[in-house]
Amino acid sequence: MIGPRRWEMMQLYGGVEGGATRSNVVLIDANGKIVSKVDGPATNHWLVGVDRCLESINNMVQEAKVAARVDPNIPLKSLGMTLSGGEQEEAVVKLIQLLKERFPTLSENYCITTDAIGGLSTATNMGGIVLISGTGSNCKLVNPDRSVVGCGGWGHLIGDEGSAYWISHLAIKIVYDAIDNFKHTPFNTCLVEEAMYNYFQVSDRMALLTHLYRTFEKSKIAGFCRRLAEAAAAGDHLSCHIFRRAGQELARHIVAVLPYADKRLHEGELGLPIVCVGSVWNSWNLLRDGFLEVLQEAKQKPMGRNLHKFTMMKLKYSSALGAASLGARHIGYNLPMNYAENVDIFFQHLFGVH
Amino acid sequence: MIGPRRWEMMQLYGGVEGGATRSNVVLIDANGKIVSKVDGPATNHWLVGVDRCLESINNMVQEAKVAARVDPNIPLKSLGMTLSGGEQEEAVVKLIQLLKERFPTLSENYCITTDAIGGLSTATNMGGIVLISGTGSNCKLVNPDRSVVGCGGWGHLIGDEGSAYWISHLAIKIVYDAIDNFKHTPFNTCLVEEAMYNYFQVSDRMALLTHLYRTFEKSKIAGFCRRLAEAAAAGDHLSCHIFRRAGQELARHIVAVLPYADKRLHEGELGLPIVCVGSVWNSWNLLRDGFLEVLQEAKQKPMGRNLHKFTMMKLKYSSALGAASLGARHIGYNLPMNYAENVDIFFQHLFGVH
Repeated sequence: MIGPRRWEMMQLYGGVEGGATRSNVVLIDANGKIVSKVDGPATNHWLVGVDRCLESINNMVQEAKVAARVDPNIPLKSLGMTLSGGEQEEAVVKLIQLLKERFPTLSENYCITTDAIGGLSTATNMGGIVLISGTGSNCKLVNPDRSVVGCGGWGHLIGDEGSAYWISHLAIKIVYDAIDNFKHTPFNTCLVEEAMYNYFQVSDRMALLTHLYRTFEKSKIAGFCRRLAEAAAAGDHLSCHIFRRAGQELARHIVAVLPYADKRLHEGELGLPIVCVGSVWNSWNLLRDGFLEVLQEAKQKPMGRNLHKFTMMKLKYSSALGAASLGARHIGYNLPMNYAENVDIFFQHLFGVH
Repeated sequence: MIGPRRWEMMQLYGGVEGGATRSNVVLIDANGKIVSKVDGPATNHWLVGVDRCLESINNMVQEAKVAARVDPNIPLKSLGMTLSGGEQEEAVVKLIQLLKERFPTLSENYCITTDAIGGLSTATNMGGIVLISGTGSNCKLVNPDRSVVGCGGWGHLIGDEGSAYWISHLAIKIVYDAIDNFKHTPFNTCLVEEAMYNYFQVSDRMALLTHLYRTFEKSKIAGFCRRLAEAAAAGDHLSCHIFRRAGQELARHIVAVLPYADKRLHEGELGLPIVCVGSVWNSWNLLRDGFLEVLQEAKQKPMGRNLHKFTMMKLKYSSALGAASLGARHIGYNLPMNYAENVDIFFQHLFGVH
């Protein structure tokens, strides 16, 4: 027999990072100390449905409460969540309403935001830019007054510039067009063509169509990007060119939101903070030249006048941290966070004075 | 009681135009006279499956034999078919084998080709270029020696330049990018944006994503092209620009195959014959400037030296005619055809001497 448990008395703030393949939860005390972490399944309500999404969130949080030795029947002070699809206001209102109805002991207060905002809030509470380049791509500027301006994030058919899907697609398209004599490329396409047949395990362009249409999987196509990164690292000119183009496209997202950036975002020690999320950033050395090229060009224009320095950083910890902080702020509490601890700075650039 | 039927004794050559929504058959006698025509259902074996495809072909042809008063148990001399997917040799061999096995009284001989070749063979027996721009796009050059060189036809994810889908997609993309401040357009996008929300019956860009992803239908997106044609006709600059771009892309297909064109293709009275298939050609006046621009540029280059004149024409009759002619040729018989009767010439251009 297990005796009655002794629960700790703590006011806790929860954060959820909801993903399309897995999710995780952190609980943080009022001093900003992480008291428990729990991993769980996918909580993308578009993919798993609303019911499973809500249940998974409740299960993870309740499990985290127990792990933190607090009474699971006492609601958290707040629960902040970063969810894909968190942009659609109607869906967000509905999700929060359902959480309140179904799980009255889960949390006193709720707040849902996108993966972009959650990522940024993990890195800084001053605002900045978050630039996602994973399978897809997306960019959000958050100003100190919490106003948000976005660029991209529209999916592979009308966006995703600079993402792994976009890089793979561009490589495939260049090969098809070169063979067709449709669009000229100055680069030798042999190595990329070989890599393409090899990656998709097909013998010609006709056979590849199956992967593009009948059995289309965005992540499968995006996965070809890794092979291109290897080819580029081995010196293949076409692959290098494609990554340079991706760097340009990613920087164009920054340029798109730059006119809306509050002057104060440029004034910190780091200059403009750019939080980079997604695996394409692992190829930063291949993206860099194209990226700098576009920002240097923007710097010359009137809208670039405030841009004197920028800092590129990756998150070291889950966006659930940022989500928890947003949830707390939502009820007027500033959760102490050591932001510098949460990021790895991988590039800084100071523009020369001309 | 119906008495025994009196069958005519005729050697007949059949042609099938197989489509993704409907199909049709013609039977032609040895003098080139059309003796019967029959319409039928879709025969795209990718869409309806091989069994239904073959059965529909057999049903249509047998019905056409009865309509021509010939004994349905006597095979045709030949049956030529233009089928989507007729490019994949393995599939073609398999289809012919199955037709022979299952329907021994259908035809003595078979021949399958693509819609492009079928269309061209309806317009000319000398070779030329066929340029399809309907929902998708595709281009084939056929030389007098029957050799074929293609450009495009890879579907909406990596091709379809200048098609209705491509035109609609470009319009949508320009609107999204302009609102995002991502890519600049010199044109006012208001009218196209309004037309887009109106056509898809949505209120904003976020809601339109459903049509692009969850309920994606290529033909639905392509259908927006008609609205753009109306806007262009009413003078909207952005819509005009997009059609001009489509004209350029369509002409680039010609330029891609031009270096492979036999000199003799330029030497007829019509100059280079370009057979235009698909509904986008109804907007020729919107495509024309862009189309001419690209061909005029190509004319200046060494590979354009043989190009002195070209003639654009549309088919007046079904590609089943061309299919029948190809089927007959396959067994060594040249079916008499009045090619000039089968086409409408809608544009001719004679390059000036520089």
